[in-house]
Amino acid sequence: MSRYAEPMARLIEELKKLPGVGSKSAQRYAFYILRSTDEDAAALADAVRGLKAALRLCSICNNVTDIDPCAYCTSPTRNQRVVCVVEEPTSIAAVERARGYQGVYHVLHGTLSPLHGVGPDQLRAGTLIARAEHGEVDEVILATSPTLEGEATANWLAGILRGSSVRITRIATGVPAGSDIEYADEVTMARAMEGRRDL
Amino acid sequence: MSRYAEPMARLIEELKKLPGVGSKSAQRYAFYILRSTDEDAAALADAVRGLKAALRLCSICNNVTDIDPCAYCTSPTRNQRVVCVVEEPTSIAAVERARGYQGVYHVLHGTLSPLHGVGPDQLRAGTLIARAEHGEVDEVILATSPTLEGEATANWLAGILRGSSVRITRIATGVPAGSDIEYADEVTMARAMEGRRDL
Repeated sequence: MSRYAEPMARLIEELKKLPGVGSKSAQRYAFYILRSTDEDAAALADAVRGLKAALRLCSICNNVTDIDPCAYCTSPTRNQRVVCVVEEPTSIAAVERARGYQGVYHVLHGTLSPLHGVGPDQLRAGTLIARAEHGEVDEVILATSPTLEGEATANWLAGILRGSSVRITRIATGVPAGSDIEYADEVTMARAMEGRRDL
Repeated sequence: MSRYAEPMARLIEELKKLPGVGSKSAQRYAFYILRSTDEDAAALADAVRGLKAALRLCSICNNVTDIDPCAYCTSPTRNQRVVCVVEEPTSIAAVERARGYQGVYHVLHGTLSPLHGVGPDQLRAGTLIARAEHGEVDEVILATSPTLEGEATANWLAGILRGSSVRITRIATGVPAGSDIEYADEVTMARAMEGRRDL
């Protein structure tokens, strides 16, 4: 039996589904909402509902967007022929933070992970492969993470794209900028040596 | 005035110079030594003295060694014509942990750091530069850390070596193996994009 009236218990249950929110936080949020004005509660409810109603995936790159195609895919200042492939929409922010990148993106919405039942069919690579085959792309930069799944995904996609005339590149794995090589793990150090570049 | 008899206070002061050792730890070590047998205390004292007496720098690569030239510089199984340049003798362990490297080393014993009064004259690069000029080296891998000082040192040394016919390479900076690109800082991400390789 719940200690709270049903509407309160229901809101707490829903809030607990948010990442990092436990019972305590969920109760605190719920009581805050209970005490707030009708307008504020309605605004929050509308914002939550509106998010799902207004956002969709870009039909070209699968980025989350409110207009289709997304702002990157329609930008006249970005090179539409260079495509950076990332795992998730949030990965785009990581590449943008680095500045300097002037191409566009393609979001796979996941990585190959047989253990979790994610095979090639679950990844959204179709539009990218079609664009590459139609000669609409000069370079595909595989910017999946250098994890087991990310590497497998990059290799799989490289294998498919090799049929087209696209230049296929992979972001560098190595010692992070600003860190001492003594703190690099074996694999990272080995990759930094392998991936050494001529100066 | 010291709370301890002079020999005790002196040992505590010396022990406190060790990295990470404060008053508490130094006292604990000192009392442990006080309680140990004469033989154990003598063995520790001899080991400390012996370290300095027996170890020297390799006359070829400046690595810390008990035989000169060091084990790397005399190894028949290592490629004596590929030299990996590192900041400190301890950096060698980082490269060795990565396995796969079959060349030798050159230890600079520091990095360029004008703020700390370390200029080119304070670095031990002379024997390496001479070996490169005499055509004894095919490749110099600059494995200083991708920090401000490490980069400055790598660039300085590359500039000097460029006069010889040596291939000069720099270890890769990038996203560490096994980590998500979303956790990469801006500079590392920018370097990972810049340093991307053809697949």
